[in-house]
Amino acid sequence: MKFFSDNAAPVHPEIWAAMHAADHADTAYAGDALSARLDAAFGAMFGTPVAVIWAATGTAANGLALGALVDPYGAILCHREAHLEVDECGGPAWFTHGAKLLLVDGEGAKLTPDAINAVLGGLRGDVHQAVPQAISITQATEYGRVYTPAEVAAIGEVARERKLKLHMDGARFANAVASLGCHPGDVTWRAGVDVLSFGFIKNGAMSAEAIVFFDPDLAARTRFAHKSAGQLQSKGRYLAAQLLAMIDPDRAAGPLWLENAQAANASAQIVADAAAGRLLHPVQANEVFLSLTADEAASLRAQGFDFYDWGAGAARLVTSWVSPADEVALLAAALRGL
Amino acid sequence: MKFFSDNAAPVHPEIWAAMHAADHADTAYAGDALSARLDAAFGAMFGTPVAVIWAATGTAANGLALGALVDPYGAILCHREAHLEVDECGGPAWFTHGAKLLLVDGEGAKLTPDAINAVLGGLRGDVHQAVPQAISITQATEYGRVYTPAEVAAIGEVARERKLKLHMDGARFANAVASLGCHPGDVTWRAGVDVLSFGFIKNGAMSAEAIVFFDPDLAARTRFAHKSAGQLQSKGRYLAAQLLAMIDPDRAAGPLWLENAQAANASAQIVADAAAGRLLHPVQANEVFLSLTADEAASLRAQGFDFYDWGAGAARLVTSWVSPADEVALLAAALRGL
Amino acid sequence: MKFFSDNAAPVHPEIWAAMHAADHADTAYAGDALSARLDAAFGAMFGTPVAVIWAATGTAANGLALGALVDPYGAILCHREAHLEVDECGGPAWFTHGAKLLLVDGEGAKLTPDAINAVLGGLRGDVHQAVPQAISITQATEYGRVYTPAEVAAIGEVARERKLKLHMDGARFANAVASLGCHPGDVTWRAGVDVLSFGFIKNGAMSAEAIVFFDPDLAARTRFAHKSAGQLQSKGRYLAAQLLAMIDPDRAAGPLWLENAQAANASAQIVADAAAGRLLHPVQANEVFLSLTADEAASLRAQGFDFYDWGAGAARLVTSWVSPADEVALLAAALRGL
Amino acid sequence: MKFFSDNAAPVHPEIWAAMHAADHADTAYAGDALSARLDAAFGAMFGTPVAVIWAATGTAANGLALGALVDPYGAILCHREAHLEVDECGGPAWFTHGAKLLLVDGEGAKLTPDAINAVLGGLRGDVHQAVPQAISITQATEYGRVYTPAEVAAIGEVARERKLKLHMDGARFANAVASLGCHPGDVTWRAGVDVLSFGFIKNGAMSAEAIVFFDPDLAARTRFAHKSAGQLQSKGRYLAAQLLAMIDPDRAAGPLWLENAQAANASAQIVADAAAGRLLHPVQANEVFLSLTADEAASLRAQGFDFYDWGAGAARLVTSWVSPADEVALLAAALRGL
Repeated sequence: MKFFSDNAAPVHPEIWAAMHAADHADTAYAGDALSARLDAAFGAMFGTPVAVIWAATGTAANGLALGALVDPYGAILCHREAHLEVDECGGPAWFTHGAKLLLVDGEGAKLTPDAINAVLGGLRGDVHQAVPQAISITQATEYGRVYTPAEVAAIGEVARERKLKLHMDGARFANAVASLGCHPGDVTWRAGVDVLSFGFIKNGAMSAEAIVFFDPDLAARTRFAHKSAGQLQSKGRYLAAQLLAMIDPDRAAGPLWLENAQAANASAQIVADAAAGRLLHPVQANEVFLSLTADEAASLRAQGFDFYDWGAGAARLVTSWVSPADEVALLAAALRGL
Repeated sequence: MKFFSDNAAPVHPEIWAAMHAADHADTAYAGDALSARLDAAFGAMFGTPVAVIWAATGTAANGLALGALVDPYGAILCHREAHLEVDECGGPAWFTHGAKLLLVDGEGAKLTPDAINAVLGGLRGDVHQAVPQAISITQATEYGRVYTPAEVAAIGEVARERKLKLHMDGARFANAVASLGCHPGDVTWRAGVDVLSFGFIKNGAMSAEAIVFFDPDLAARTRFAHKSAGQLQSKGRYLAAQLLAMIDPDRAAGPLWLENAQAANASAQIVADAAAGRLLHPVQANEVFLSLTADEAASLRAQGFDFYDWGAGAARLVTSWVSPADEVALLAAALRGL
Repeated sequence: MKFFSDNAAPVHPEIWAAMHAADHADTAYAGDALSARLDAAFGAMFGTPVAVIWAATGTAANGLALGALVDPYGAILCHREAHLEVDECGGPAWFTHGAKLLLVDGEGAKLTPDAINAVLGGLRGDVHQAVPQAISITQATEYGRVYTPAEVAAIGEVARERKLKLHMDGARFANAVASLGCHPGDVTWRAGVDVLSFGFIKNGAMSAEAIVFFDPDLAARTRFAHKSAGQLQSKGRYLAAQLLAMIDPDRAAGPLWLENAQAANASAQIVADAAAGRLLHPVQANEVFLSLTADEAASLRAQGFDFYDWGAGAARLVTSWVSPADEVALLAAALRGL
Repeated sequence: MKFFSDNAAPVHPEIWAAMHAADHADTAYAGDALSARLDAAFGAMFGTPVAVIWAATGTAANGLALGALVDPYGAILCHREAHLEVDECGGPAWFTHGAKLLLVDGEGAKLTPDAINAVLGGLRGDVHQAVPQAISITQATEYGRVYTPAEVAAIGEVARERKLKLHMDGARFANAVASLGCHPGDVTWRAGVDVLSFGFIKNGAMSAEAIVFFDPDLAARTRFAHKSAGQLQSKGRYLAAQLLAMIDPDRAAGPLWLENAQAANASAQIVADAAAGRLLHPVQANEVFLSLTADEAASLRAQGFDFYDWGAGAARLVTSWVSPADEVALLAAALRGL
């Protein structure tokens, strides 16, 4: 029973179906009919004109997004435990040709205007230090925490004042929106986000993330970086098909991206309820961080649960769209039984 | 009737089947059971120990391969019309952090020892010029020409003498091997190739190329570049599945990669035979380059054939594993009718 | 008797004097009083507002200039024998993080609108090829040829039409202007040049070139690249002192940069006159390219003349501001005596 | 009376003399007679074979040194307040093409084996995190602290165990050695240092630092990076002259680098003695960090002393080889008088 990550879950049947439906020759690269529909489809979803580029990984989506926002001598503010900093090897510097990450502290891996201003205030503003040019926040955060629209807007306001661009790493954006119950535009462009890495792979897709540019001009130059970086797949229609199936507004039961995220979040809540006394962070998306002794961890593993330790005396359990209800129930029972 | 490229063809049914068979949770990234089998499977195929890394595009495969071979101040010899030079935007420099392409002339986009030595002989060997560190050849070439094992070995010999590494861009490696009828080891490691970008996407896969390192040590450091470059997909098992299905030695009818390539080549021969007087290059793989007046091109297009002009008075027609026999026959007839 | 290059000549006494005059503590980096005067001094010289950054080498000046003009996925058109292409190792890609050089042919290492348009016309304009973003011309060229104001303006016009920036590698800009007898603005900003690498080291300075930005905004971001690239010297006042002494408009005998260039050019003319039948290029600046057999070259060397062979049967002789009149006369006599 | 930095001090008369002595034509770049003597001269000084490359700035020296030690996907451990991290803009990433700095804590900007191991212990060792490949320590540190030979050796031991390379940023290496009274080999190669950025500019030179490779093979490839980075000056003999004059073992009064550093250190001690109760760090080289109220700082400035505030309630005063004895005495008196 796998609760170590949502990023290895299988592919949703409707995503398979959409890919099969694209299984005919079409123009290569991003010239196919499906890729051509992305801007309009995401624009309708977000309620504003956007330009969308698909990418095969979150690291590439983040890297290309940041590469559109900063210079090689620029700096990006992000949380000290951001995926950018601790999980992408040399990715951010690779895609920006050397930009620096300036690390910000914050509870639950969340940035705040004060914490951002504290880091900015520590800089001298001379040519001997990399120029801050962007802020990157993760929604939901690496600790499964969610920024409200007001919280994002407050950061967006700092960005505007400081002439910084705002990037959102939305590897679990769907889980965040499902948790917030808000319009996706409310926590993005309306709150000052310039580019969103909109993750689908953890949420039931196979191999497609969307880089959503709320300033379409930024996308134009990124297409050359996308090609140079080896991200422009010749059969891109299979990626576009995944994205379109995920956000299809005409799906009877509502959009798949939201349905899947809601399912994952609901499973996490069941686990959270069972582990109420142990929670290290409020459970707002699909990740549960627990205090857990080594013995308790061993006990859970002996019962067949697979998950990551998260430092000493702690563990991370992640649910996904596909987490079986019975396995979630067994996990909840096991946690109660510790 | 599409003859503009093999790179937009649909996905082979057995590839779909293999991907579906991988549709269960497993360890993420390259830690899954299928990815773990790649080295052994490709090693058996090539008859020598190898290390294999999957990538989503040929540009990424080439870039990561070259990044393992050259320094940012290094140079790579390739043909003036190589994909590296004319079709990968800034890819080679992106992945090598600045290495230079030194362009070599040669008939049919083929390099020869003499042509390579001519370029090397024009260099001064001082620090004011980028250091030649690798040769890259394309098999089959951008004009559908094929290097024989002896021809590759002759280039491999130059590489060894000059202390250069030898890379093979095998976007259509399958077509070349099918054409040559040789063992895949004969035109690669036995002939001095250090790294092969082994293409599958043009040959019926969806999104997986294999970077085959004949020196496994080179692969180890490349794994970090692979991650940094945003190529390490979390659901890598779907890529590994494609590769393993392609090279499965136990397939009753023989390996799929070879079957598909043979089919594409056979279709190209039918077209070539029909256009015998117009051939600009011998047809040795699955590409046919023809002299064709503008009127003739228009006539073919009016009959429903889709293909690229290739400069003035010339055209490129590409067959694929999936080119329907009837469409190929119609094309042949149309060419004869011009 | 050294005629192999002007780049190893000693330092002019007035440059030494200017450096000594700066030999007191001042603010470090580019914050000193002399560096602060550069923009105004060069602006007065060129007759237009400029921003100026010093650099220790021509490769750095060119690299920083181009880095201000192009993206990592961009391309720069330059001559096939440009210093950028054949003498700066990986410099252009180093400073631009991967931009590509597109090589243009042209007699005497000179570009023409037609030759530029021919290269641009061969590009497809899709994302699979690096985006042309700049043209770089060398004044005087690598063969000692000079662009007239009209010739530069014609290239500037192509640049404007094609939305390309125009860079001038002026390692021997002084020699060119001395040869043309024009105002320095006439062959630069008035003719469409955006950034000039203005060389002084070959012309009697020790270690300072000037990057002259005719669009001062371009300089602002370049200051961060300048620092990151390790070009921002803490005792920058010694570089500024060299530049200011070179262009001092109040010097009684006229500006030193022009006097030195005129001297070098005049010496070259003496040599050229003596070798009239052997000239491979018109001598318009301070370089003389001759046909010279191996025996003749040996004979000259036996008489004490030091110079470079320039391929088989040819040689390059370079005069400088300091070439002694007697040595020039001896060389002329020796050439006549061959 | 300037105590804000040693990096803007004038040039020592003997350095001027050495540069003037080089003022004749010679082979360009690093091919001159003086540059050719560097390896032997520094080798004799350090008591081991070395290869030496000059550079115009400390940022370039550090960058080229690190570029020889790490890959673009590698990481360098350095102190949180290291010059690399806070004073070189994007330099380290520029020269390494993206390597990451992993920040280590430590009193007085000094690293210890425990602190290094703590950071290494927090890494997972998978491909999702940049590979630690080097440690960089600053001697003397950014707080004017000095590593003893034993302290460096302990870090060298960690480096060896962990298969990391050890770089020393010796912008004030002379001050450190003068303070320690040890052989320069004792705190470098004998203690495990692989490459030293040996600073001379803060110690009386004009524009030359030395990159000292204790593994000469590492220098060979660096020469191409040195050229590509625009650091290879054509009149390199003026840089070599500065270095050779600095370390000349035949100088009657002992080597200049040591004499100058001793003078700067002695001045700092006078200041330190006068400010004994205010010292924020032991004064071991030529920097004095004091607690100083805003009123006290204003009082000193009113008396003509120029220095940097170092956060609230603190100040940095730096002496140099040229600090006049009377100004130092006045400063000491003023500090006593506060």
